[in-house]
Formats: sequence, structure tokens, C-alpha cells
Amino acid sequence: MEFTAQQIAEMTGGKVEGNPSTAVHTIAKIEEGIPGSITFLANPKYTHHIYDTKASIVLVKDDFVAEKPVSATLIRVNDPYTVVAHLLQAVAQLMEPQKVGIEQPSFIADGVEISSDCYVGAFAYIGNGCKIGKNVKIYPQAYVGDNCQIGDNSVIKPGVKIYHNCVIGKNVIIHGGAVIGADGFGFAPNNGHYDKIPQIGNVVILDNVEIGANTTIDRATMGSTVINEGVKLDNLIQIAHNCEVGSNTVIAAQTGVAGSTKIGCNNMIGGQVGFAGHITVGDNNAIGAQSGIPNNVGSGKRLMGYPAVDGAAFARQAVNIKNLSRLYAKVAEIEKELKK
Amino acid sequence: MEFTAQQIAEMTGGKVEGNPSTAVHTIAKIEEGIPGSITFLANPKYTHHIYDTKASIVLVKDDFVAEKPVSATLIRVNDPYTVVAHLLQAVAQLMEPQKVGIEQPSFIADGVEISSDCYVGAFAYIGNGCKIGKNVKIYPQAYVGDNCQIGDNSVIKPGVKIYHNCVIGKNVIIHGGAVIGADGFGFAPNNGHYDKIPQIGNVVILDNVEIGANTTIDRATMGSTVINEGVKLDNLIQIAHNCEVGSNTVIAAQTGVAGSTKIGCNNMIGGQVGFAGHITVGDNNAIGAQSGIPNNVGSGKRLMGYPAVDGAAFARQAVNIKNLSRLYAKVAEIEKELKK
Amino acid sequence: MEFTAQQIAEMTGGKVEGNPSTAVHTIAKIEEGIPGSITFLANPKYTHHIYDTKASIVLVKDDFVAEKPVSATLIRVNDPYTVVAHLLQAVAQLMEPQKVGIEQPSFIADGVEISSDCYVGAFAYIGNGCKIGKNVKIYPQAYVGDNCQIGDNSVIKPGVKIYHNCVIGKNVIIHGGAVIGADGFGFAPNNGHYDKIPQIGNVVILDNVEIGANTTIDRATMGSTVINEGVKLDNLIQIAHNCEVGSNTVIAAQTGVAGSTKIGCNNMIGGQVGFAGHITVGDNNAIGAQSGIPNNVGSGKRLMGYPAVDGAAFARQAVNIKNLSRLYAKVAEIEKELKK
Repeated sequence: MEFTAQQIAEMTGGKVEGNPSTAVHTIAKIEEGIPGSITFLANPKYTHHIYDTKASIVLVKDDFVAEKPVSATLIRVNDPYTVVAHLLQAVAQLMEPQKVGIEQPSFIADGVEISSDCYVGAFAYIGNGCKIGKNVKIYPQAYVGDNCQIGDNSVIKPGVKIYHNCVIGKNVIIHGGAVIGADGFGFAPNNGHYDKIPQIGNVVILDNVEIGANTTIDRATMGSTVINEGVKLDNLIQIAHNCEVGSNTVIAAQTGVAGSTKIGCNNMIGGQVGFAGHITVGDNNAIGAQSGIPNNVGSGKRLMGYPAVDGAAFARQAVNIKNLSRLYAKVAEIEKELKK
Repeated sequence: MEFTAQQIAEMTGGKVEGNPSTAVHTIAKIEEGIPGSITFLANPKYTHHIYDTKASIVLVKDDFVAEKPVSATLIRVNDPYTVVAHLLQAVAQLMEPQKVGIEQPSFIADGVEISSDCYVGAFAYIGNGCKIGKNVKIYPQAYVGDNCQIGDNSVIKPGVKIYHNCVIGKNVIIHGGAVIGADGFGFAPNNGHYDKIPQIGNVVILDNVEIGANTTIDRATMGSTVINEGVKLDNLIQIAHNCEVGSNTVIAAQTGVAGSTKIGCNNMIGGQVGFAGHITVGDNNAIGAQSGIPNNVGSGKRLMGYPAVDGAAFARQAVNIKNLSRLYAKVAEIEKELKK
Repeated sequence: MEFTAQQIAEMTGGKVEGNPSTAVHTIAKIEEGIPGSITFLANPKYTHHIYDTKASIVLVKDDFVAEKPVSATLIRVNDPYTVVAHLLQAVAQLMEPQKVGIEQPSFIADGVEISSDCYVGAFAYIGNGCKIGKNVKIYPQAYVGDNCQIGDNSVIKPGVKIYHNCVIGKNVIIHGGAVIGADGFGFAPNNGHYDKIPQIGNVVILDNVEIGANTTIDRATMGSTVINEGVKLDNLIQIAHNCEVGSNTVIAAQTGVAGSTKIGCNNMIGGQVGFAGHITVGDNNAIGAQSGIPNNVGSGKRLMGYPAVDGAAFARQAVNIKNLSRLYAKVAEIEKELKK
């Protein structure tokens, strides 16, 4: 399938500069453009690529001014990034057509209703008492335990495991291998060994959440572990029992949150961060990769390090530590001088 | 289902203080109590909650003395925590009834015997030569490779993968997505590339072990990777080939243990800790989250940091590092003064 | 099955020293040797074990000179390690016979061809348009999405999930629970919440790669996330979208590589390391466990720490930090002296 610059300009309300019949069949990053591809320039940092990209068409901002000749055909639009996002969505759907229907063999417990716009892949399992919304896609080998709810338009990718009684909102995406609702890690010491504390709570995931591959979110001991609206969790993250993650907080891969910790809204949390249990983190914090957070955190902080400190203090610490050998030498010299 | 304070007092050998016909239908934490719930006060730290909890019944210790009026009905018992643990167990079983029987389609190799109190979920796979104990529960989409043994009363949750020849004890719980017995990471360098060293050992898990979701325990190169009795492993933990974890050691999420390391008994190990390979760790250590353990560790230590040091030393180090800028300034001043 | 020293010497071109009819039926490490086992001495570090090993036969180097009596029968060979590797391979195949054929029920989309030397386990899923090479083994409950390619002799272990359009080379092994091609973690901020950026790229894994259990490799936003020839990835590793890992680089468990980072060839990377996004790492580096790599790295470096520094500098830093309390004391003393 090919589109011409003219066709794309009409679809996007843009203005062609160059040959309107230039045709493309794929999308690429500007630095990886190939003939027959369309690309875009949204971040001024990458402007230098436009002069030697091999892409056939480049989407640029209305007010882009070239400082050298550009061989690609340009399409000027108001917001190239948004236009590309829409193009990507269209391409994504072409590349992975929406699945519909029930593949066999699959296991759907008696009495569970599946609307006709849903997909249930082969070897998927849906337990007793589940409520599955409209247009839900449950991929092969996914497991939905007894009495779970899954809201409209949510996508459960292959091999996801959702234990009994968990609640998944609307427009949620859970990626392959994620485990939702396994038992929280709770044991009571008893004469040198440990007794299991039954975990009778659940996990509640609100609307518009995306959860990465092989991430684990444990069910609460009592009550719920809660992932609020719009949260985005990357791969291999651990969310322990009774945690709460506030709306629109974004967490990168391999971060761990220990039991009962509450994280607020709109935080940006790097990869491999560790949060101690039973602490509270406010809103709008930026926490650097590999940080360790032992105590409560307010709001609007930039933290980094282990144990984490303010971002600027962390940079200073790193320099201070690097220069320590010189400091030791200097102090030794001062001592020597004093002895004289 | 509802129980009255009187009924619960009779079941638990407790003494009602307040209205004996107060009825409850659920369990809650004291700070999250709602009308119709029973809660408990075991940790004196939470005593202040008892004066404003909305729970209808609170289990307290025999000798609890209220300092203000308490609106909830009290039940005095010897050990509120143990009573609650038993209540939780009863509720857990109500919420997730014991599964029994063989769901179809499942794959059970010819000649494998499954006793009638077992559960084999749909899409579960049990290979040739496996020996499955009594009352074993193998959830949907779990994989048990050829010649494995699983002891009585063990529970293999959905999507667990157990490679061939591994041995699982009695009363073991393995949570969703855990992989037991994948090949150890062993390669021999050969002219710039690597040759695989076949991993012919297995994994042996003893009785009363619990293993978290998506945790991985690799098979030994030769011999066995061993998880001893009563060990509790949280989610997303890596145990490499030929490791041994001693009885009743507890390890929090995302910790990694490199190859051939032996960890002793009754250790408490935090999350995201890393152990180097080929080291030995004694008994009864407490190792803080995110620590790095490069060398052998004795017994009874409190360690923290990267590389790990004694807990008190770690706290001192953190303060020392925080104050470094001041130290640099002070030394500069001394220098200036000396030059005068 | 038993073999005599004489038989093994003939198979390996070795020379027996001791009783040529000594028979063995298993392989063991030298320190774990039992009667009836064969072991080997490749690393001089373990020489002391040869004098008290209980193994019946020990493979040693041609030029090994015993300093004390050895009770085991010796077989002298050119390279004991290689001989053992071949023995291990033979034993591994005995212990886990090559699977062949298609188990039922499995799901193979119409039109997908499976050659007769392949294995497709029960509950495995192979989507539309897939191309499966010769002698490929796809274990139970593995998922291969639409339009994937898998090269000759590759092994997809139980429960692996490969999303649509990914390309797997020849002689690749992917261990249980690994997720290949889940969506990259890409979101565009939009008035306090995030819009998903569709991820239309794929993952390309070249020949002779091994990927550990529960490791995740995300598909590219556009283009490909690439794992080059001979790369070995341990368990629970995260490779983000648009990353590239160069040939014969080896990465230990739980390491994470953030988006668009390019790692060169023949690197040895420890466990729990974190790489920032959008950086470039050269060739032949050795990066210590738990390091944090915030910036570009050249080639041939030995790095360690968070943020990572040269290995020697890291050791010095650790000592410098340990001694800080003494330095503070010394500076205080100097100050006191000066005041006098």
C-alpha cells in the first residue's frame, strides 16, 4: 500500500512543498529514513538530520525554515508529532489487525458472557463468575481466574495471569507474562520458621493503565493493591501487596515498590529504583534510575542516588567522591606541614 | 455470611466486651475498618487507631487497657494475631475454594498417576515419568516437564514452568510465571564467541517453600540447585545455577544470587540485593535492600550498601558523604590559613 | 549405562593412568565427586581437590604432575574442559531426548508449514503467516504471533511469548517465560496524562543467541530492536525498544538497558547493571555487577559503580569512603591545633 504526499497532506490538513506525487509505503525515524518512507521532524535537536535523510517525505512544522537544501518532499503541518502518532496508529492496526472471535480450544467457564466483538485466543482460560466487557481482547494462553472483571476495550496479551477476584478497568493493556494478583509476600515468624499469612485482598487496576511484560502486582493482604487511572508501568516491575500508585505516574523497568507504600500522581520514576515499604511518596516527583527511596518523599522533588538525595546534591556527591583521593593527599600534606 | 461477636468469641476462646450480637461479614485492617468488619490490634504502634476505627469488632490482647472510649465491640484473646491468621485462612478458602479434578483439555502423559484429590487445570502439561503427590493443585497453563516429582499438597499456580527432572517437595507453593530449572548461564569462551555448556543438573525444592511470581531458579550445571525447607522467595528473584539457599531464609523481590553461591539459614534479605557468584553467606544475617555482596559473609551480621558494610557503618557513610562539601570547604580554608 | 576408563580414553584420544576397567555412570564436579562418577581438572585453582575426590575417574591435562598420591583413575587428555563439554552434551541428550512431532491439542494457523523434524508441544500457538525452519522445537504453551520467522534448529522453551512480526535466527534458544516483542514503553505527555505511541517495529534476533528465562525484549517504535549473533542474555533482563546488542556480548541476570541504547560486541556485563537510554557502549568492556552507566562508554574499559567509574578508581573510592570518619576526625584535629 502506498500513499502520495498529496494524499497525506489532504488527510492531515498539511501543505506539500516539493513533488506532490512522491509515494511512501512505510514510516521511519528521521535518522533511519529510507527511500519510500515518511518521517518527521518534531524535536529541533534532530534538525540536522533533515539535510541528509534518505526518507522520501518529511513532516515538518508550519514554520520550519531550512538552512540548507532538503531533497525530501516536505509536508508542513501544525504539529508533526501528533500527525505521526495518528499515522502510527493506522499502521499499527494494519500490521496487527484487530482479532475478533473465540479460537478453539479455549476455556470459558459456564455462564461467562463474551460479547461478539471480543477476542478469546486459543488456550486462554476464563474462570467462573468473570465479567468481561465489550471489545475485550484476551490473547492465547492468558489466564483470568474466578470472579475477575475486565472493562471495555481492554487487551490482555498472551500468557498474562490474573488471579481470582481482581478488577481491571477500561482501555487497559497488560503485556505478556505479567502476573496480577499473586499472593502478597506475607509471613509470620513462628519459632524459626514462617507461617503464611493468607492474602485475601485483590488488585484493582483503573482505566487507561498499561502494564509491561513480566511485571508482577501482588494482591493485598486485606483490601486492594490499587493502580490508578492512566498509570504506565514498564516491564519486570514489582508492586507489592497493599501498594497504591497514583494516577498518571510512569515507572520504568525493573523498579520495585515494597509493601503498603503509597505513590502519588504524575510522578516520573526511572528504572531499577527501589522503594521501601510503608512509605508515602507525593506528586510530581522525578526519581532517577537506580535510586533507593528509604523514607517518605514530598512533592515536586528531583531525587537520585542510594539513599536518594536531591538531584543537584547527588551530582555534587559524585564529584566529591571522585575527588576524595586528592582530598586525602591534601590533608596529609597539611598534617606534614603542621608537624614542621 | 455473618458471624456475631458471641460466635467468634466461642470459636476463639475469647471474651466479648460490648454487644455480643454485633455482626460482621468481612476482615479489615484497623485503619481501614468499615461497619460490618472485624479487625485486630496486635502491634501497639497502631493502638491510636482503635479509638476511631469504624470496624464493628476489634480483637485485642487479654490485657489491653483502653485510654479513651472505644465504640467497637472488643473480643479479648490471648494472641490476636494468631486468631486473625486463622480467620484469614478460613476466609481465603471461602474466597478461593479448593479446586479438584481434571479440567479439559489438559495434557497428562501416559502412565502418570493423578490422585482423585488433585487439581489439573485446563491447558496444564504434565510430562512423561512425572510423579505427582496427593492433593497437588496444578493450575491452568502450568508446565511440568518430563520426570519431575511434586510432593503432597503442593500448589503450582497458573503458567509456572518446571523443566524436566526437577524435584518439588511437599506443601510448596509456586506462583504464576515462575520458571524452575531453566538452563544455568554457562558458556565457554572459544575464539571470540561462546560455546554452550550443557546444564545436566536439576533444581531441588524442599518442603514448605513458597516461590513468588516470575521468579527464576536455574538448574545446576551438574548436581542440584537447592532451595531448602521453609525458604520464602518473593517475586522476580534470580537464583543462578548451583546455588543453595538455606532453610527458613526469606528473600524479598528482585534480588539476584549469582552462580554457585551458598546462602545459609534464617537470613532476612531485602529486595534488589545482588550476591556475587561462588561466595558463602552464613546464618541469621539481615541484609538491607539494594545491597551488593561481593564477598563471603559470616553469621549474625547486619549489612547494607554497595559494596555492603555493617549497617551502622553504612549510616555513618551516608552522613559522611552528605557532608563532604563542607569538609572540602573546611580543608580549603585551613589551606588558606596555613598559607598566611 | 556405564563406561570404562578404557572406553572413554578411546573416545577422547586420552591415555589411562590406573585401572582401565574403572567404570562410571555419571559426571560430577571434582569437589562433589562420588564413586561411579567421572570428573575433570581444568582450572589449576581446584588442583587440591584431586587428592581427595571420591570420583572414580578424573580427566586431567597431558602434563599434569601429581604432588601426592591420587586414588582415582586418571585419563590424560589435551584439553579436559573440551572433553567434558562433549561428554556433557552427550549426557544432556540422554537426559532430555530430542522431542519430535506435533502434540495435541496445539494451534497452528492454516498454511503454516512445519517440517517433520520439528516439535510443537501441546498448547503451543503458531499464528498466521509464520515461517518455521527445520528442526525447530516449540515447547508447550509457547506463543508465536502472526508473521514471525524462526530459523533452523532454534528452541523455543515452554511459555515463551513472541509477538507478531518478530524474526528469530538459527540455533537460537529462548528460555521459559521470556517475552519477545512486547510494546516499547513509549508515551507522549498530553495535558497531565499520557497517549500511547504505537510501536510498529519488531525484534530481530540473529543466530546462536541464547535468551534467559523471563527476560523481556521490547519491539522497536519503528525499525527493529536487534540482538546480534552469539549474544547470551541471562534471566530477567530488560532490553528496551530500539536497543541493539552487539555480537558475542554476554549479559548477566536482571540487567536493564533503556531505550535506543546501542551496546557493542564482546562486552561482558554483570548482573543488575542499568544502562541509561540513548547512549552508545563500545566493544570489549567489562562492566561490574550493579553498575549504573549514565553516559557513552568507549571500548576496552573496566567499569564499576553507580555512576560507574574505572574499576581501580571504584576500589579506591570504596576505601576512601570507608575511611571518611577518620578523615573527618583528622581535619577536626588539625582545626583544633590551628586554633591553638
